Amino acid sequence: MPSTLAADKAVRPTTVPAPAARGGHRHASLTVRGKDRPGIVAAVGAVLGEHGANIVSLDQYSDNPQGGAFFQRTVFGLDHLGAALPAIEEGLRQRLAGDFELEFTLRDLSVPKRVAVFASKSDHCLLDLLWRHRRGQLPVSVAMVISNHPDTAEEVRSFGIPFFHVPSAGADKSAAEAAQLRLLRGNVDFIVLARYMQILSADFIERVGVPIINIHHSFLPAFIGAGPYAKAKERGVKLVGATAHYVTENLDEGPIIEQDVVRVSHADTAAELQRRGADVERAVLTRAVQWHAEDRVIRHGNHTIVFA
Amino acid sequence: MPSTLAADKAVRPTTVPAPAARGGHRHASLTVRGKDRPGIVAAVGAVLGEHGANIVSLDQYSDNPQGGAFFQRTVFGLDHLGAALPAIEEGLRQRLAGDFELEFTLRDLSVPKRVAVFASKSDHCLLDLLWRHRRGQLPVSVAMVISNHPDTAEEVRSFGIPFFHVPSAGADKSAAEAAQLRLLRGNVDFIVLARYMQILSADFIERVGVPIINIHHSFLPAFIGAGPYAKAKERGVKLVGATAHYVTENLDEGPIIEQDVVRVSHADTAAELQRRGADVERAVLTRAVQWHAEDRVIRHGNHTIVFA
Amino acid sequence: MPSTLAADKAVRPTTVPAPAARGGHRHASLTVRGKDRPGIVAAVGAVLGEHGANIVSLDQYSDNPQGGAFFQRTVFGLDHLGAALPAIEEGLRQRLAGDFELEFTLRDLSVPKRVAVFASKSDHCLLDLLWRHRRGQLPVSVAMVISNHPDTAEEVRSFGIPFFHVPSAGADKSAAEAAQLRLLRGNVDFIVLARYMQILSADFIERVGVPIINIHHSFLPAFIGAGPYAKAKERGVKLVGATAHYVTENLDEGPIIEQDVVRVSHADTAAELQRRGADVERAVLTRAVQWHAEDRVIRHGNHTIVFA
Amino acid sequence: MPSTLAADKAVRPTTVPAPAARGGHRHASLTVRGKDRPGIVAAVGAVLGEHGANIVSLDQYSDNPQGGAFFQRTVFGLDHLGAALPAIEEGLRQRLAGDFELEFTLRDLSVPKRVAVFASKSDHCLLDLLWRHRRGQLPVSVAMVISNHPDTAEEVRSFGIPFFHVPSAGADKSAAEAAQLRLLRGNVDFIVLARYMQILSADFIERVGVPIINIHHSFLPAFIGAGPYAKAKERGVKLVGATAHYVTENLDEGPIIEQDVVRVSHADTAAELQRRGADVERAVLTRAVQWHAEDRVIRHGNHTIVFA
Repeated sequence: MPSTLAADKAVRPTTVPAPAARGGHRHASLTVRGKDRPGIVAAVGAVLGEHGANIVSLDQYSDNPQGGAFFQRTVFGLDHLGAALPAIEEGLRQRLAGDFELEFTLRDLSVPKRVAVFASKSDHCLLDLLWRHRRGQLPVSVAMVISNHPDTAEEVRSFGIPFFHVPSAGADKSAAEAAQLRLLRGNVDFIVLARYMQILSADFIERVGVPIINIHHSFLPAFIGAGPYAKAKERGVKLVGATAHYVTENLDEGPIIEQDVVRVSHADTAAELQRRGADVERAVLTRAVQWHAEDRVIRHGNHTIVFA
Repeated sequence: MPSTLAADKAVRPTTVPAPAARGGHRHASLTVRGKDRPGIVAAVGAVLGEHGANIVSLDQYSDNPQGGAFFQRTVFGLDHLGAALPAIEEGLRQRLAGDFELEFTLRDLSVPKRVAVFASKSDHCLLDLLWRHRRGQLPVSVAMVISNHPDTAEEVRSFGIPFFHVPSAGADKSAAEAAQLRLLRGNVDFIVLARYMQILSADFIERVGVPIINIHHSFLPAFIGAGPYAKAKERGVKLVGATAHYVTENLDEGPIIEQDVVRVSHADTAAELQRRGADVERAVLTRAVQWHAEDRVIRHGNHTIVFA
Repeated sequence: MPSTLAADKAVRPTTVPAPAARGGHRHASLTVRGKDRPGIVAAVGAVLGEHGANIVSLDQYSDNPQGGAFFQRTVFGLDHLGAALPAIEEGLRQRLAGDFELEFTLRDLSVPKRVAVFASKSDHCLLDLLWRHRRGQLPVSVAMVISNHPDTAEEVRSFGIPFFHVPSAGADKSAAEAAQLRLLRGNVDFIVLARYMQILSADFIERVGVPIINIHHSFLPAFIGAGPYAKAKERGVKLVGATAHYVTENLDEGPIIEQDVVRVSHADTAAELQRRGADVERAVLTRAVQWHAEDRVIRHGNHTIVFA
Repeated sequence: MPSTLAADKAVRPTTVPAPAARGGHRHASLTVRGKDRPGIVAAVGAVLGEHGANIVSLDQYSDNPQGGAFFQRTVFGLDHLGAALPAIEEGLRQRLAGDFELEFTLRDLSVPKRVAVFASKSDHCLLDLLWRHRRGQLPVSVAMVISNHPDTAEEVRSFGIPFFHVPSAGADKSAAEAAQLRLLRGNVDFIVLARYMQILSADFIERVGVPIINIHHSFLPAFIGAGPYAKAKERGVKLVGATAHYVTENLDEGPIIEQDVVRVSHADTAAELQRRGADVERAVLTRAVQWHAEDRVIRHGNHTIVFA
């Protein structure tokens, strides 16, 4: 199948409207974080109210009302959202950043985040993401798939998604990472490692400048590192799990977004643990990607606040 | 054990401080419901802000932002909460009831709701509630246990809770219900049917005037009515469940608060389904009672909004 | 893509070796059912032992040891299995059918069962089955996909599986069912309805003569019939589920093979219940198909014995 | 309440008939383990058949049919079981121990195993075990509760169970362990550590000579050692769990019997993790105790085979 056709096809499926936009008019998300002080919720409500915005959902969390950290996610609707956003942003800047010294992010939910999926030979997480995306269930735009193996190229392109093969041979990954950075620069809002079997360098993580979500095939912090299913079999656990987390310099130690487990028994071989675990991996990764895409996840130190 | 001692003991364990009050100063909950219109969240925030209240948590839901039904639960803290509540209530009345035609309920969370538990011979739900209550995990005051069987009297009183035996013989329950009403009048804020095996009359439900939570031993609407475990065995289901719901005139058809299930197999007899189901019943009922006690459940027609 | 190529491709992926055969030599399954009497297990063991077979796994269940119904599944290995099976079968016939009046089925597990998948427009169950099959995780041979809509033809054929479009217009389905029967006759060992939206006639069920597995998108017996997610939303349940069952003349009332549920909330629309439920549907159907393919499911009246 | 009364009461509730005996005549369990060879199942069946025993359930597992380890649990019924057991045992010894060099254990299931429960201040696991026992749901005889704190004495004795307070002060536990051994000697078949907060010495484990089951309040191997809920909060996990395992010299590293988890969120404090986890702990410990009591658990190196 010629790649031009693939590119043509990609136009439609990758610009799925975000679910939050289905209500008729458009929605935006506002996430706020900073030191908790009385009056923040009222101030946000007042600014949005002044612009005629209608709050559709609001979640708020404070890890200590007496001066702890404050987190809020608000989704609001407005008839001429795009035109009004700059003024709303300016209003929020004055009230939140000025009076309260809070950080905030304002985003038009009808513009899906652009994601690059990194993969290797395993295709279960990759294909499940592409499949859900095609069904209109993942509010993202899949900009590209990058893999260090060519195996899934044809399948990926059949979804209308560009596929790039960036081999990763030898200990020195600087050339491969440079090639990845050239593809990604300016094109993506976050990266998903869908069972990508290479370790990203600290330098890459810093230079790429967008959040990276990884799926680890164990219930972290159990079985950190390589071969978790073999380790699980060796230890004789009765459940195996998967963990989606943000990637940091420390392998498998970044902030956890989501986890889940499935029951196994003495009769399951390590290969069967892997097969059962694969179902959990794809489910957990899907939830993490969806929540990240909808601004439901706020990082705070090595933790996450998830308004799911 | 003399009942006076039981009554003495009851003073301490039944006035457990609500968890929400642990933060240092006291907390109140505000639930708001009515027709959705822009500006409600800001208005609530403004009134609370004027009184120096700090919002600890806020959940909001609208079943249709274009004029649907609006629901909000806010927990806020304030140093001299008791003294300030009347003025806050007046402020909310003017803003919410006046401008927005909303209904609201304001409640001091440090005053636990008073509950009467109705039971029959089965003790698993009853004892689990009393146990959790004694451990300080249920933010309620257990005012009394009423049973149509005397079997659990000694056990209940050992928790320091008054026990009243109100037999329910024959088809005419009016005498028994009248006796129950005399015990309850003015003493309780809600009633929990902890596997109480009598059907309450519509007249009782109306006259008692407080919410009644029932635990049904099936995943409703499957297996409505009597003998759900036998019916489940007969149908050959692979999961059995339990449902906590508000009691209405229509048996097993009131608004569902919480449900859960547990896996069973062909090898489980109806008695074993019952044993496995009993664990789910007590877990589901506990969650429903806790959520109701913390004003996390809002009834809306035959549905519930649960901010858990 | 020319269909001849698709057919070529189909040769490999559809003859996946059954997992039970991975041990080195080949395995057979023996299922036995009938009236429980002492000595059955020993008799089975004796016959297998006489032929040098090694029992790999054995599950046994009796619904009442005093003359109830007896069920047994045995997997055994043997070096020259194919050559030995006829003699083993004859030995079992004499001992089990003769002495004990039991029914039994003996099957070479290295020969995967042939399945036809029936589908309509929804593709999530269909594609998940094909995907798992391609990954070598479903021990079946997918003989064909039959759909009353052409939508999934290209996708199905990309897996190397024959696709047949049999439209089903109007109230009279006899022509469509006759066409289906011509395609199926002699070619399949069972049928899977992967969200096939047509009701099969009693005549078809009888004439096709092989087991039919359906996935119903609710936790049966709740929400029988059409539109279960809308009904679930209307009732306000807190979990939605799916049920895989054998098809009988009575819609949604056949023997249940497997069920599962997922948590939902008041904030989920009927469309979101459907999306969450879809994940449960494909997981439940996969387990049912795998268990059926491995002879782990024994029908008994309107129940199933599942040795999973 | 005088202790003699407690002792009197104990006679009845602690000799609950094992569930397996409910069928009318009595049942025995036979567990077999050793090197896998063809013919074991048939040999067991033959010996049992010669004595007229009827096999009620049979589970078998081999970790490698080509000379791996073989495990089998058989439950059988017989009219005059007690009288027949010695002859059956002799028959098994000749066939299994002689021909096959297998180890086996034969046990009359109508004689419940005697257990000592060790506890400290936490009562949730302890009381749930006693409660289930009183309801006839745990097929054990609770011989005694030993605690290093006197707090639960009254409650334990109200169940009719002897309570012994053995303080454990200072680093030298030899005196306390000697006192425990004197109480236990000859009186118990296994020990359950129901959130017992003392570490048992290797010397005690060896001298007591019966299996010891511990409940650890995390999903092992995550969060080994003290304070797992605080560690879980620190790491930001989205599930907390519990693990029941046999005690070995290596803390938290013995063979795992059962595990389970429950979902938590960023909003749960460490205290709330503990509260949610407590429900999982008691459920997991109950299952482990029941399975051990019914001979469903076979230890194999650092693993368990669980025929549940």
